[in-house]
Amino acid sequence: MSERYDIAIVGSGPAGLEAAINAVIRNKKIILFGTENLSNKLIKAPKINNYLGSFDVTGKELMQKFKEHISAMNINIVEERINNIYAMGEYFALMVNEKMYEAKTVILAGGVEYTKPLKGEEEFLGKGVGYCATCDAPLYKGKKVAIIAYNKDAEKDANYVSELAGKLYYVPMYEGEYSLNSSIEIIKDKPIEITGDTSAEKLILKNEELNVDGVFVLKDSVSPGQLMPGLEMEGEHIKVNRNMETNIAGCFAAGDCVGKPYQFMKATGEGQIAALSAVSYLDKK
Amino acid sequence: MSERYDIAIVGSGPAGLEAAINAVIRNKKIILFGTENLSNKLIKAPKINNYLGSFDVTGKELMQKFKEHISAMNINIVEERINNIYAMGEYFALMVNEKMYEAKTVILAGGVEYTKPLKGEEEFLGKGVGYCATCDAPLYKGKKVAIIAYNKDAEKDANYVSELAGKLYYVPMYEGEYSLNSSIEIIKDKPIEITGDTSAEKLILKNEELNVDGVFVLKDSVSPGQLMPGLEMEGEHIKVNRNMETNIAGCFAAGDCVGKPYQFMKATGEGQIAALSAVSYLDKK
Repeated sequence: MSERYDIAIVGSGPAGLEAAINAVIRNKKIILFGTENLSNKLIKAPKINNYLGSFDVTGKELMQKFKEHISAMNINIVEERINNIYAMGEYFALMVNEKMYEAKTVILAGGVEYTKPLKGEEEFLGKGVGYCATCDAPLYKGKKVAIIAYNKDAEKDANYVSELAGKLYYVPMYEGEYSLNSSIEIIKDKPIEITGDTSAEKLILKNEELNVDGVFVLKDSVSPGQLMPGLEMEGEHIKVNRNMETNIAGCFAAGDCVGKPYQFMKATGEGQIAALSAVSYLDKK
Repeated sequence: MSERYDIAIVGSGPAGLEAAINAVIRNKKIILFGTENLSNKLIKAPKINNYLGSFDVTGKELMQKFKEHISAMNINIVEERINNIYAMGEYFALMVNEKMYEAKTVILAGGVEYTKPLKGEEEFLGKGVGYCATCDAPLYKGKKVAIIAYNKDAEKDANYVSELAGKLYYVPMYEGEYSLNSSIEIIKDKPIEITGDTSAEKLILKNEELNVDGVFVLKDSVSPGQLMPGLEMEGEHIKVNRNMETNIAGCFAAGDCVGKPYQFMKATGEGQIAALSAVSYLDKK
């Protein structure tokens, strides 16, 4: 049986970090999923004046302070992208491709800047459309596959898939140099829709159409509703009460993903509440 | 006509300060009521580890950072104690004894450590019981008055009242040296109840009873419900929604006064939300 954490925190922005430090102070065993940069939004902020105690800082300076804080408390960030979370009753299963993490409670703090699904993407999910190229590649041996890639990490996956697939189209949604096997065809075009009869058959782009057997969409993050089946939303935000409880027992949320204003201090405040709510949920069990 | 502020913030703890800096960034004309020490709770905190970005600090160190922050933004703290706030329709009237401040919106951030009313205090308020000794002293010319004093500031008021009253009892609820006129009788005893028929007639203490015509209760802070008539409470907390709106239009609240957990980061997050809600309320007008 895999190790079971008390609290899994998904997201390393201000909300996730503040949740993490509060949970650790309360002696909970946590796992924190995120990225080395903490938060894209944070590092891009040119000037922050409303984070009380730190006047006139750049996002990067604040990021540095945050990193020092969690590192002084021996909190590590696990750099993995959670694809799905399932409420199993006694615990939550957090899936990273084929790998599974287990936690008694979950705090969703993934922000709000996730990639909107393509037309047809949700309809054909599991029917030719997938989010995990390395897991599902064997299904497409000798077949035609398209990868819609939102970041450079996807290149490694693409190279792996290209060794199995008959034909691989790579549709990069980012700029830069691409380190891809020569067999891979790079398509610089804007994806519009995935169509098909009972399964995905065609990727329609702005200027052309590709006949395919499978489409992988490799995003930075998926919307909370896609991430966690059954999670109640309010528009594009996770519905929470003032204790940061979602509609799923043991699942809490904080930060931009629960609503406006999209602000760092609001996010940290909510992260703290979410952590303390998770702690009392655990203590009651 | 007195100057009318956009936002009056009552309380200089983390919630009030974060509200202030956000309001100023949004170009609102604010007035911030509080104390030089910012918050008793803050300066008494021996060690704070969960204020993201500031690991392993004392409350006093954090207070110093907060002070530097507001001072860099030219935000001053007006050291006055608001006795009452009245919703006048177009604006709020904030009373400091005989003085009045006007503001279009109010953010209540006074914390939760206020003095509980004595038995009989609310019943006889305005009928022999008052909070403003200097305002009401003339009513008690030649009469018997008791002052229940929660802090040293009350001594100045007591000396003033003693020049008008026939007899003044001073009941200090704090330790220390008392700088009082010799005509004042100091009563070191615990007040239990104020009784009377249609108005206050007797102050009952643990060991004795005083026949009086008036009782002044001079506290550090009054409960929000006492401060602002008509404000909806939930137990001892101000009832707010997730936008930090109270039941009174234009009145917002943040920090410990709106509920647990009593934590600095939760308070700052709420202060930010309250300020931004007040800003959009003002912008809609």
